[in-house]
Amino acid sequence: MNTNFLRACKGEAVDHTPIWIMRQAGRYLPQYHDVRGKGTFLELCKNPERAAEVTIQPIDFLDVDAAILFSDILVTPEAMGMHLVFEEKRGPILPEPIRTKADVDKLIVPDPVDKLGYVMDTIRLLRKELEGRVPLIGFCGAPFTLATYMVEGGSSKNYFNTKNMMYSAPALYGAMMDKVTECCISYLQAQVEAGAQALQVFDSWAGVLAPCDFAEFALPYVKRIIDALKPFGVPLIYFANNGATLLDQSMTCGADVLGLDWRINIEDAVKIVGPDIALQGNLDPIALFLPEDKLEKRIARILDGAKGAKGHIFNLGHGIIPETDPAKAKFVVETVHRLSKR
Amino acid sequence: MNTNFLRACKGEAVDHTPIWIMRQAGRYLPQYHDVRGKGTFLELCKNPERAAEVTIQPIDFLDVDAAILFSDILVTPEAMGMHLVFEEKRGPILPEPIRTKADVDKLIVPDPVDKLGYVMDTIRLLRKELEGRVPLIGFCGAPFTLATYMVEGGSSKNYFNTKNMMYSAPALYGAMMDKVTECCISYLQAQVEAGAQALQVFDSWAGVLAPCDFAEFALPYVKRIIDALKPFGVPLIYFANNGATLLDQSMTCGADVLGLDWRINIEDAVKIVGPDIALQGNLDPIALFLPEDKLEKRIARILDGAKGAKGHIFNLGHGIIPETDPAKAKFVVETVHRLSKR
Repeated sequence: MNTNFLRACKGEAVDHTPIWIMRQAGRYLPQYHDVRGKGTFLELCKNPERAAEVTIQPIDFLDVDAAILFSDILVTPEAMGMHLVFEEKRGPILPEPIRTKADVDKLIVPDPVDKLGYVMDTIRLLRKELEGRVPLIGFCGAPFTLATYMVEGGSSKNYFNTKNMMYSAPALYGAMMDKVTECCISYLQAQVEAGAQALQVFDSWAGVLAPCDFAEFALPYVKRIIDALKPFGVPLIYFANNGATLLDQSMTCGADVLGLDWRINIEDAVKIVGPDIALQGNLDPIALFLPEDKLEKRIARILDGAKGAKGHIFNLGHGIIPETDPAKAKFVVETVHRLSKR
Repeated sequence: MNTNFLRACKGEAVDHTPIWIMRQAGRYLPQYHDVRGKGTFLELCKNPERAAEVTIQPIDFLDVDAAILFSDILVTPEAMGMHLVFEEKRGPILPEPIRTKADVDKLIVPDPVDKLGYVMDTIRLLRKELEGRVPLIGFCGAPFTLATYMVEGGSSKNYFNTKNMMYSAPALYGAMMDKVTECCISYLQAQVEAGAQALQVFDSWAGVLAPCDFAEFALPYVKRIIDALKPFGVPLIYFANNGATLLDQSMTCGADVLGLDWRINIEDAVKIVGPDIALQGNLDPIALFLPEDKLEKRIARILDGAKGAKGHIFNLGHGIIPETDPAKAKFVVETVHRLSKR
C-alpha cells in the first residue's frame, strides 16, 4: 500500500509529499457524470456500488495518495430527522430549519448503522475494491457548520439565524449542538469500524465566527469529537475553512493534522502551529487555471513553505471546481510528486 | 464641529473614541424606508435631496461621529458605461459582464462631474445641511472589488471568472484595472473638491485572494489611488474585508486608517500594523443581537484591544444588517462613547 498519506499525518518520513484533492471525485470528471447519469446527488451518495465507483475514479485517473469517501456532510442532519434536498445550482435546502425548542427536541441522535448504513456499506466495499492501493478517508461536518445548515435551512450570506440563536438563546443552541456532536461521534466511530483509515472534520463555515465566538460556540464541540475518536488510532484532520485567525485555537483541538485554505501563506501557519502538528493544503482551487509554469512555481512555494511542519499533505484550499480541466488536476498531482521526491 | 473622527484618523487626542457604522443609513431604520418609499435603491442614490436626507438620519438618531455619503460602490462601473440593476433580494446585476478585449476597450474613463455629478451634488448639499456637526466621508470601491462585479456580472461564490482572467489573461485584466483605477482616482478627487472630508476605499472581496495574488492583482491599484489622493490632505481609510492575512501588505498602502472585519482580534491587528497606523472596527454586525450586558463586554474588549494603535475609530466589521433593532445600534454608539470618555 501507498502509505505516504498516513505517514505524513503522523509526521513520519515519506517517499514524496502525499496529495489528495477536496472533491476529487466530482463534477470536473467526465467519468463522474457517466456514473451519476440523471440521478440526483443524494441518490448517488446512497448507492454504495456507485458511490464506491466514483470514489475510486480519481485514484485511477489522478494517482492521488488517498481516497475520500464520496458522500456529503449533510447526510447527518438528514439522519437526525431533517428533510434534505439538493437543488441543482441552488445547493442544499433543509425546508424545515431548526428555530425553536420543539425543533431541537424533535432531532434524534441516530444509530449510524441504522440510519447511515449505506455509508458503512460504501466504506466496506471501498476497502475491498481499493485493494490496499491507498488509504481511505472518512469524514463528517463539524457541529458548527452542520448547525448553520440546520438553522439557516441551507446556505447563508451572513449566518444571521445561527448567530442569533447563539447570542439570544445560548441554551437552545447548546442543546442542539450536543445532539449534533453525539451524532458526529457515533457516525465517525462507525466509519472507522467499517474501515475508514483516517477522518476529516470539515468546518466549512468556521471562518464566519469572531475568535471569541469560535472559542465558545464551535471549538469545544470539535474537541469533544477529537477526544472521542483519538482512542481509535486513525489520523484525525480538522479543516476550519477561512480560519487563519482561528489557527492558534484550532491547534489545541487535538487533531493530528490541520487543513488550511489558500488565504494564509503556509509558512505563516507553520509559524503559528509549530513543529508538532501536520498541515494540509493549501493551493487556491482556481490557481489550476494558471499556465503550467506559473502553477508549478506556486506549488513549489507551498511545498517549500510547509517544510517546518511536522508533516505536509498537499491539497487545495477548498474543493476543486467543476470548470477545472482534469488534465490540470493531473498536472498538480504529478508536480507535487516530482518536486517532493525524496 | 465634532472632529473626533478626523483626529482619530490622524492619531491625535480625542474626547472619546469616535464611531460610525457601515450602512448606518439603511434598511434597519424605519425613517429610511419612509424616504425611499417605492423607489429603487439606485433612484435614491441618484436623488441628491433624498440621498442627503437618509445620510443625515443616523447622525440625528444614533449620534455617530461621522456621516458617510449614501451611495453605492457600483455607481462607478455604471459611469464607465456598464448597465447596472439592483434586484431586491438578489443584489446587484451587471447583465453584460466584461470578458473580452472588446469589452474592456468599450469601458470609458468618465469625467466624474459629467457622469457622477449627482454624487457631487449630494456632497455639496450634505456639507450645507450637516452645518459642521460631523465630518462627511466619501468613498469608492477598490479596483479589485469593482472588477469582481464587472467580470462576474454580480455577486459570486468563488470569483472564478475574475481569477480566471487574472491567471489566463493578465494583460487584459491589467488593462481593465488601469481604467477602473483611473476612474476611482478622478471620482475621489471630485468628491474631495465637492466637500468630502475623509475617504474610504472599500475592498469588500479582497479576502478571497491568496496573499501572492493580492500583492500582484489588487494592492498595486489601491496604492495608486492612495498616492493620488494623499496630496488632498483628507484622511484615507482602506478596508480590505476578510483581510487578516493581508494586513502585513495592506499596511504598506499608505492609508491613514485600515478597516478591520470581525474575524481578527483587534489587538492582533495592532501587533501586525504597529503604532503608526490607525485602525477602524471591528464588532461583528450580528453581535448587536447579544443581550446588552454581553454586548457591552464585547465593545469594551475591542476598545481595550485597540489601545496600542495610533488611533481607533469604532465601527462594525461589516455593514449593519436590516434585521437590527435601531435601539441596539443606538446602544452601541452610547456605550462606545461612555466607555471611552477621556
